[in-house]
Amino acid sequence: MKLGDEPDYPAILAEIQAQVRPYVGQGAVADYIPELAKAPLDRWGLAVATLDGRVYTAGEAEEAFSIQSISKLFSLTLALQLVGPTLWERVGREPSGDPFNSLVQLEHEAGVPRNPFINAGALVVTDVIRSHVPDAAQAVLDLIHRAAGDEAARFDGAVAQSERETGHRNRAVAHFMKSFGRLRNDVDEVLDAYFHHCSISMSCADLARASLFLANRGRSPYTDEQLLPAEWTKYVNALMLTCGTYDAAGDFAFRVGLPTKSGVGGGLLAVMPQGFAACAWSPGLDRVGNSIAGAKALELLAQATGLSIF
Amino acid sequence: MKLGDEPDYPAILAEIQAQVRPYVGQGAVADYIPELAKAPLDRWGLAVATLDGRVYTAGEAEEAFSIQSISKLFSLTLALQLVGPTLWERVGREPSGDPFNSLVQLEHEAGVPRNPFINAGALVVTDVIRSHVPDAAQAVLDLIHRAAGDEAARFDGAVAQSERETGHRNRAVAHFMKSFGRLRNDVDEVLDAYFHHCSISMSCADLARASLFLANRGRSPYTDEQLLPAEWTKYVNALMLTCGTYDAAGDFAFRVGLPTKSGVGGGLLAVMPQGFAACAWSPGLDRVGNSIAGAKALELLAQATGLSIF
Amino acid sequence: MKLGDEPDYPAILAEIQAQVRPYVGQGAVADYIPELAKAPLDRWGLAVATLDGRVYTAGEAEEAFSIQSISKLFSLTLALQLVGPTLWERVGREPSGDPFNSLVQLEHEAGVPRNPFINAGALVVTDVIRSHVPDAAQAVLDLIHRAAGDEAARFDGAVAQSERETGHRNRAVAHFMKSFGRLRNDVDEVLDAYFHHCSISMSCADLARASLFLANRGRSPYTDEQLLPAEWTKYVNALMLTCGTYDAAGDFAFRVGLPTKSGVGGGLLAVMPQGFAACAWSPGLDRVGNSIAGAKALELLAQATGLSIF
Amino acid sequence: MKLGDEPDYPAILAEIQAQVRPYVGQGAVADYIPELAKAPLDRWGLAVATLDGRVYTAGEAEEAFSIQSISKLFSLTLALQLVGPTLWERVGREPSGDPFNSLVQLEHEAGVPRNPFINAGALVVTDVIRSHVPDAAQAVLDLIHRAAGDEAARFDGAVAQSERETGHRNRAVAHFMKSFGRLRNDVDEVLDAYFHHCSISMSCADLARASLFLANRGRSPYTDEQLLPAEWTKYVNALMLTCGTYDAAGDFAFRVGLPTKSGVGGGLLAVMPQGFAACAWSPGLDRVGNSIAGAKALELLAQATGLSIF
Repeated sequence: MKLGDEPDYPAILAEIQAQVRPYVGQGAVADYIPELAKAPLDRWGLAVATLDGRVYTAGEAEEAFSIQSISKLFSLTLALQLVGPTLWERVGREPSGDPFNSLVQLEHEAGVPRNPFINAGALVVTDVIRSHVPDAAQAVLDLIHRAAGDEAARFDGAVAQSERETGHRNRAVAHFMKSFGRLRNDVDEVLDAYFHHCSISMSCADLARASLFLANRGRSPYTDEQLLPAEWTKYVNALMLTCGTYDAAGDFAFRVGLPTKSGVGGGLLAVMPQGFAACAWSPGLDRVGNSIAGAKALELLAQATGLSIF
Repeated sequence: MKLGDEPDYPAILAEIQAQVRPYVGQGAVADYIPELAKAPLDRWGLAVATLDGRVYTAGEAEEAFSIQSISKLFSLTLALQLVGPTLWERVGREPSGDPFNSLVQLEHEAGVPRNPFINAGALVVTDVIRSHVPDAAQAVLDLIHRAAGDEAARFDGAVAQSERETGHRNRAVAHFMKSFGRLRNDVDEVLDAYFHHCSISMSCADLARASLFLANRGRSPYTDEQLLPAEWTKYVNALMLTCGTYDAAGDFAFRVGLPTKSGVGGGLLAVMPQGFAACAWSPGLDRVGNSIAGAKALELLAQATGLSIF
Repeated sequence: MKLGDEPDYPAILAEIQAQVRPYVGQGAVADYIPELAKAPLDRWGLAVATLDGRVYTAGEAEEAFSIQSISKLFSLTLALQLVGPTLWERVGREPSGDPFNSLVQLEHEAGVPRNPFINAGALVVTDVIRSHVPDAAQAVLDLIHRAAGDEAARFDGAVAQSERETGHRNRAVAHFMKSFGRLRNDVDEVLDAYFHHCSISMSCADLARASLFLANRGRSPYTDEQLLPAEWTKYVNALMLTCGTYDAAGDFAFRVGLPTKSGVGGGLLAVMPQGFAACAWSPGLDRVGNSIAGAKALELLAQATGLSIF
Repeated sequence: MKLGDEPDYPAILAEIQAQVRPYVGQGAVADYIPELAKAPLDRWGLAVATLDGRVYTAGEAEEAFSIQSISKLFSLTLALQLVGPTLWERVGREPSGDPFNSLVQLEHEAGVPRNPFINAGALVVTDVIRSHVPDAAQAVLDLIHRAAGDEAARFDGAVAQSERETGHRNRAVAHFMKSFGRLRNDVDEVLDAYFHHCSISMSCADLARASLFLANRGRSPYTDEQLLPAEWTKYVNALMLTCGTYDAAGDFAFRVGLPTKSGVGGGLLAVMPQGFAACAWSPGLDRVGNSIAGAKALELLAQATGLSIF
């Protein structure tokens, strides 16, 4: 189909709900953070926000979950608002070819992260924000509220605390970059802000709304605020496509054909430029760390709407 | 602009010609193959083929050059024709994060190449073809002829011979994979076929025509042949976007916003799905191995037409 | 010469003093810890302790310096006293082939350090000690006192504090291992104990005395205490030879031909089994982190005495 | 015991024969070269050559086997004879920390091998020889004959041919180095010479005799020829200790305490400077590629004689 013909979303979502069922419950919940291990394996949800602001849903699309790395979309947007393209002097824009928390490439490349979506890169982004605002995590949350036009998103203190106590790999990454002089603020402060914005809790519907500006040349249909220039919005979408799902970016480009960002809470946020923002969620993860049922839902959505950037 | 409004290509190309001039002659020609080092640093060309089959040109768009790795688009297409998606059992679909000829990742991943566009992956693709046809390089050339609807493309024996004599890195890659049991045919035969299809010589206009099926859901407008199913065509485009320009895939997604495949002969082939196939060429390469003036031309083309997949 | 003929140490040391002069002041002092950067570049010393307990000296052999990684000899000895060869279940015994603080190998080998002399391995050793004694650093210092038969060695609080504030690479290494479950105690406690035992300050003469048990099948000639069984003492010497000078272990085996342990404070401790323990010191380091004049002094000592394990 | 008291070798070897039995037949024969896979898993032998030229044996010490990488001792000796220490401009002297045929380190270090005992380093050594003599493999064999004072060693054409047909990893290594300009002769010629000198067939007794000069400051007791200066002989022994058994160099230094060189044919050659040269053999290999029963025999020999360099 061509852009412009509006798909019949209610029918499409009903059909997806039927087909995605067998995948719900597959995989394992993230257990490296104790608090995340409590996520309910049997849930799933899907929400599609279209440019006119309407939101179509299926499953538990109103149930809040931990957005984790999907928050990197908003911290990146905020950092671009604050420092513009000079951000790219501090973090690269290339796929890493390594797991999201690998230190190997970081060592070979003297502490400069490959892109803003691997953990190292997201920590640099948080460090950039921290240099401009006293409470970086709150600033990310504020941006989400402004983008969504509501205040549904909130911090989950238990998740942040759990990650603070057990996030040794992220601590290693942060101190490693500090040893190369790549973080300008106090390591513990940066980690704290990072753990906090990763702990934000939202539903599929909330996330679809808050991300819709990425499908709409940078403007939120809810508040009409231009959150990013159209050109930079394309950059964020391009990064999502090439780097948004870690080691599975190629696989997602194949199966889904849309820029997508994943989080270990089981969320997946996909953008069809000029089309929609869609959020699928289910806590069961595959080996790489992406939601199994969520990925299936997005694949079915792309097939049913015929929408793909390729 | 929206898809559907036809850009004024003659005016756009004239404007690009004016703006790209300062970039022509920058960088260095590939010198690791002696015969390629003879390429004329002061040339450039650009051709845009639109879905109706028309070709718009600027610069030396009719001058033949060595397409090198751009031939991997056609060997991949041919292998998909021959074995379909079972190809993915032998080669991955993920960005590598390493230079195009690195052996590091190959060793860590037991000889299975990351994607069909790094040299290791393209050698496996050639090996797959060789298992089905006696002359793999000729079969790639034949496919190009069928896609373009003419017989302009031809082998350059001197380039093939030069690479055969000096391509020690590719020999290393091939024997390395053979040691893991990843090549089924004789190593020297596979290398020979690979060097030959890389030596194919075509002009920008030829390449734009021969690649137009990738922008047209798999069907060549020139011969009306369905070269690939529409679904698999999307896969090829997705791979071009994530893996087509080596270590600079992220940068191209940013600057150009179109699936692009580069070759060390200075060619760059970009696809706007449902829009056009464009080929830019200029032998001066940047550090990563992509044409400097060619990349600038594609960037200007994307800006002027307003077309981007993001 | 054969073992048994006592070399004329006073004459040999006088000759070394003359020859080593041009090398003193070459290289650079370690500057990654601010407090170490204050070390006096123009000093050097040499002390040789023979099995009868006598100590021969040249240069500033009584001037205290920061022993840094040479302390790993004593923490290893202490850990072997505490847990015996079960230590090797937690740390390897192979050369690393990488710089002393690389995280690459650690990642590939799931957080198990290659040997007890790279920083990661020494942190595990300190963790082992900490599981048995409340103040691990004090226990290392006590062992040094018992081995030397005096109480000359002392902590340098300024150095420990300086490393605590700036040792981000070591923090990264420790958190990285913790993320693999390789440290059993609190990360900050282990780091604190590690920074403290690395900050121990001793002179060449002190170090030669304290290490003499390694040349004497595990028994200190000063106190007659058997600090390690003879068999395990050979293990420590073997580890010094293969892993004691980081990336330069092969070069030291060549040039000096004796098991040697270096520290970034400019100290070098060498052992000739059944012969002597020798300590050379000068703060100017080569690119790898070993003392230039110190290495020269040991090389001359091996040549003049004709003693080598090869 | 002290050097000088001659151990009772006949009694010691009889005891070792009794104790080593349970280890014979453990492990697997090398199977990456088809011809080597034919080695008899149930055999073992041990020979000790003392400085007076006598040879003590146990087991099948007169049965010839493929010496494989032990030949690198002789190619290194020959290259040092030909070009002296300038050899170290072309190959390093440090442990690699990686398997013997890894290409990772080679890529990171621009094609310069870490040491002459990994395959890459041995290929450079063979290349150096080839630049001075027309038949490099024959020259290595001639050196062995001169060192042993007899002509027992011979090429095994079937093994050389088998490796020529299947040695893709070594071909990869050689072409890889050629791509960095690190080999000066034709790649196929160098590989041919390398495969040939690795195919040399000798017994334990032959090898102990031929290597005795390494325990005797460079002089062969059989022919009284000074094959290497005493100083350079120490270098070869130091390299054996730090790099002679691949990833197990640390483990051998621990368990055996003697410079040792292994081969995938199941041979192990150990040197006690001023003491003996000993060769143990049994085709069953451990995971790293060292003979299980052979290593046990050397460990028992070191224990029983009390001889160790540490």
